[in-house]
Amino acid sequence: MLKILFIGDIVGKPGREILTERLARLRTELKADVVIANGENVAAGNGITATLAKTLLGSGIDAITLGDHVWDQRGWDDEIDDFPTVCRPANLPESCPGADHVILDIKGFKLAVFTVLGRTFMGMKAECPFLCAEAMFKKLEGKADGVFVEVHAEATSEKIALGWHLDGRAIAVLGTHTHVPTADASVLPKGTAFMCDVGMTGPYASVLGREVAPVISRFLDGMPKRFEVAEGDVRISGALVDYDEVAKRATEVRLITVRRGGGR
Amino acid sequence: MLKILFIGDIVGKPGREILTERLARLRTELKADVVIANGENVAAGNGITATLAKTLLGSGIDAITLGDHVWDQRGWDDEIDDFPTVCRPANLPESCPGADHVILDIKGFKLAVFTVLGRTFMGMKAECPFLCAEAMFKKLEGKADGVFVEVHAEATSEKIALGWHLDGRAIAVLGTHTHVPTADASVLPKGTAFMCDVGMTGPYASVLGREVAPVISRFLDGMPKRFEVAEGDVRISGALVDYDEVAKRATEVRLITVRRGGGR
Amino acid sequence: MLKILFIGDIVGKPGREILTERLARLRTELKADVVIANGENVAAGNGITATLAKTLLGSGIDAITLGDHVWDQRGWDDEIDDFPTVCRPANLPESCPGADHVILDIKGFKLAVFTVLGRTFMGMKAECPFLCAEAMFKKLEGKADGVFVEVHAEATSEKIALGWHLDGRAIAVLGTHTHVPTADASVLPKGTAFMCDVGMTGPYASVLGREVAPVISRFLDGMPKRFEVAEGDVRISGALVDYDEVAKRATEVRLITVRRGGGR
Amino acid sequence: MLKILFIGDIVGKPGREILTERLARLRTELKADVVIANGENVAAGNGITATLAKTLLGSGIDAITLGDHVWDQRGWDDEIDDFPTVCRPANLPESCPGADHVILDIKGFKLAVFTVLGRTFMGMKAECPFLCAEAMFKKLEGKADGVFVEVHAEATSEKIALGWHLDGRAIAVLGTHTHVPTADASVLPKGTAFMCDVGMTGPYASVLGREVAPVISRFLDGMPKRFEVAEGDVRISGALVDYDEVAKRATEVRLITVRRGGGR
Ligand SMILES: [Fe+2]
Ligand SMILES: [Fe+2]
Ligand SMILES: [Fe+2]
Ligand SMILES: [Fe+2]
Ligand SMILES: [Fe+2]
Ligand SMILES: [Fe+2]
Ligand SMILES: [Fe+2]
Ligand SMILES: [Fe+2]
Repeated sequence: MLKILFIGDIVGKPGREILTERLARLRTELKADVVIANGENVAAGNGITATLAKTLLGSGIDAITLGDHVWDQRGWDDEIDDFPTVCRPANLPESCPGADHVILDIKGFKLAVFTVLGRTFMGMKAECPFLCAEAMFKKLEGKADGVFVEVHAEATSEKIALGWHLDGRAIAVLGTHTHVPTADASVLPKGTAFMCDVGMTGPYASVLGREVAPVISRFLDGMPKRFEVAEGDVRISGALVDYDEVAKRATEVRLITVRRGGGR
Repeated sequence: MLKILFIGDIVGKPGREILTERLARLRTELKADVVIANGENVAAGNGITATLAKTLLGSGIDAITLGDHVWDQRGWDDEIDDFPTVCRPANLPESCPGADHVILDIKGFKLAVFTVLGRTFMGMKAECPFLCAEAMFKKLEGKADGVFVEVHAEATSEKIALGWHLDGRAIAVLGTHTHVPTADASVLPKGTAFMCDVGMTGPYASVLGREVAPVISRFLDGMPKRFEVAEGDVRISGALVDYDEVAKRATEVRLITVRRGGGR
Repeated sequence: MLKILFIGDIVGKPGREILTERLARLRTELKADVVIANGENVAAGNGITATLAKTLLGSGIDAITLGDHVWDQRGWDDEIDDFPTVCRPANLPESCPGADHVILDIKGFKLAVFTVLGRTFMGMKAECPFLCAEAMFKKLEGKADGVFVEVHAEATSEKIALGWHLDGRAIAVLGTHTHVPTADASVLPKGTAFMCDVGMTGPYASVLGREVAPVISRFLDGMPKRFEVAEGDVRISGALVDYDEVAKRATEVRLITVRRGGGR
Repeated sequence: MLKILFIGDIVGKPGREILTERLARLRTELKADVVIANGENVAAGNGITATLAKTLLGSGIDAITLGDHVWDQRGWDDEIDDFPTVCRPANLPESCPGADHVILDIKGFKLAVFTVLGRTFMGMKAECPFLCAEAMFKKLEGKADGVFVEVHAEATSEKIALGWHLDGRAIAVLGTHTHVPTADASVLPKGTAFMCDVGMTGPYASVLGREVAPVISRFLDGMPKRFEVAEGDVRISGALVDYDEVAKRATEVRLITVRRGGGR
């Protein structure tokens, strides 16, 4: 049995801190063989830097994925290629720097990881996530023993359709980007673990990790505001997938929530 | 204590049937004092008709709300005003037919119910849900003992911000429209029950209630397809809010899931 | 000198009729060597059929291009491959029926024609028009003496950027889709003719070819309306490009407007 | 006869400079009685400042309107109320600073000016422009002898529908925002001058006023770029409306283009 812990969008300092404090213990508690995390909001809510990527990889995360905020931090496009266990969304233009997937060796099991961006309601333009996923599976044939897919998207329809489309081919299709965990964890009929969104890792007394007051104010008058990362009710949010390498199917997937200063 | 059961978007015949079969029993099991349901997808997935509204109201639902699919069925705009316990979204233009709220009398407690549409990523244009909610609260002053708010929206940011904005004023701010239940049920600090989405009532072996194959096919080639309502894994999805009329705050909110042929 | 007449989105019966009445004469007046027309709104405003495609090709149009309305008429996906001088947008998924370009032989000059859809503010999802155009130019190398590009898009930024990007490579980059002709016809520095939009061919006493009253009504109350094709002030709208095959550059481009019952 | 010159979105330094150089002469040449200009891109392409507003008002512009970039410059929200001849879009939330209209006295004729933002494909959320325009006309009754309306919007459908809706009530409904002038200037049947877009005042060897290369690069790889204001082919673009105060209708509207170092 392979146990994969996938952690949703890490937001700012609170998100980084709770991982430093709790990830090692959580890994042990869950008997997780591998930890993958989305780091697109690590740097004060926007993007990632080389320094922060190193911190995360040093705190027990094995691979970092990224979403539409991938290029928010200046200079990261020059640094991303230094990180063999960090990948940018696979359906960005080929000319973009960064790997389109990561392969991790877990006790001899070669686990491929890639992210596709959705196209519905997304500001960043990307190639078709369905066709990109097809191409990635073809590319990974013979190189990986199993493939973990993250779908970083807004629309539930696009995420769910991709889950069904890859059912039986992917170990898991897990969603991110909305920063809100969904209550729909399930193993699809052909054995792929699915969840619309695993939520964010950061302050939940917030709007998607940002202070509440300026966001409300912005909705009310439409005027620009500074959206600082919030501080209250910090949680790790993610999903744990149990994968049976012999049967070649996921047997379970469930939402994992850890509250700062509290338990699961 | 007032127990309010709110049922998410009822999709097609499977959605109607599971309610006919199970709602009466569920109501008893949950000791629900009142049942509110979103009916925007009742008619083969699109809109509602007078006949179907009557069926729902006869099967144990006390009030029906509607979303962006409100006008999908021809003729409903002429019929909606015959239904005193049905309301259309409050932030549509004033000239639209239909009530912008419903007031229910529950053992002497006057419960007002209204829906606002989000504006982010929504095809239907609507006035500002934040300002509309303000105006509705003003309008309902002295007429209701408590206000239940549905936010029918795509973006998690808009839903969460509205929840915080109405915290302490609304009994609950519960989301619909994405057709996927979220795992974030909570009572906000000032006593308002909140949840990003209560999910849909209909077939879950589907994409938002529709058959899987044509939706995937559409994502792959972009060509028009018929999207029939699916049939498998039918569930009731909703939320139960416990409201303390004396303390004037919600004390609990939790996701309710009932599987056809199964329990909760 | 090669004179290319490009006619913008033909809308419904009025659009077809003015072409039957006036195109032959216009062709002579302008000494046009070839006529290309966008036919995405030929069938009552939505899409095209085999019968209508034949009518257009019989009335003096040499090649028909299509936009986001390409699949609006049922059955057309089975018929499009029967038409060697009709092409669908090139940046649709490869699995779509229809050719992604047309090659016309004009007195020995091989003119390639293709359309790309924009991605900004467009409902139909398409692959990157910039990368698609690159790929098309590569594919057409050695097969065509010159390439005519239509950009069927909403956003002026995307159209203008594509014009500059293909400057010196395309004979012309001419826009369609907004149904409003722009006053920006120009030959870019390296010799490509450019115009943001050549306008529609159909009734101008209208909103984009549709009757005015229901469109206004829809904007006011958001309720569904039937949008019939309008009838008043019918015009041909297009652009005439003069291309110097020896210098390999366009020397002029100008808006062509013909009013029904009137002159230019 | 009242001659109104309306100047489209002034972009950065090149836009300001050509006005300083040429506006006085242009005013004389056209015998314009009044000059209105959209100033939303005056400050390096984004927004406006008090200093720049003063410069414009000192260079022969009588009233400044604004669009979705209204709040781009920090501090302007505190300054806008100092300018009685500057207005922000009328369909922003009431709580926003700034006037929702300007009234100019032209030889005894009281000309009201207001802008509405479109809602289709616009990032900034606004109330319904159709209902807002209705409300503004009501509000201005008895206060103005004529009303000039700017529609700052992306979609041609929304602009054209608003033109028809206000036909006979407004002196003119002229569009801005796309930065590309349209070739559709016309007086509608009941006497309102209409044009989808009057274009921008700034460098046309550009993409909407910005340097070409970084915009193309951004479309190709989706990565952030600095978009500096361009420099080549600077033009004034606008429209001249002839209004007959006795007949109470516009008699003509035409596009005005002035090239730097050149004539009209
Ligand atoms: Fe994120
Ligand atoms: Fe994201
Ligand atoms: Fe729904
Ligand atoms: Fe909905
Ligand atoms: Fe069209
Ligand atoms: Fe189109
Ligand atoms: Fe502008
Ligand atoms: Fe604008």
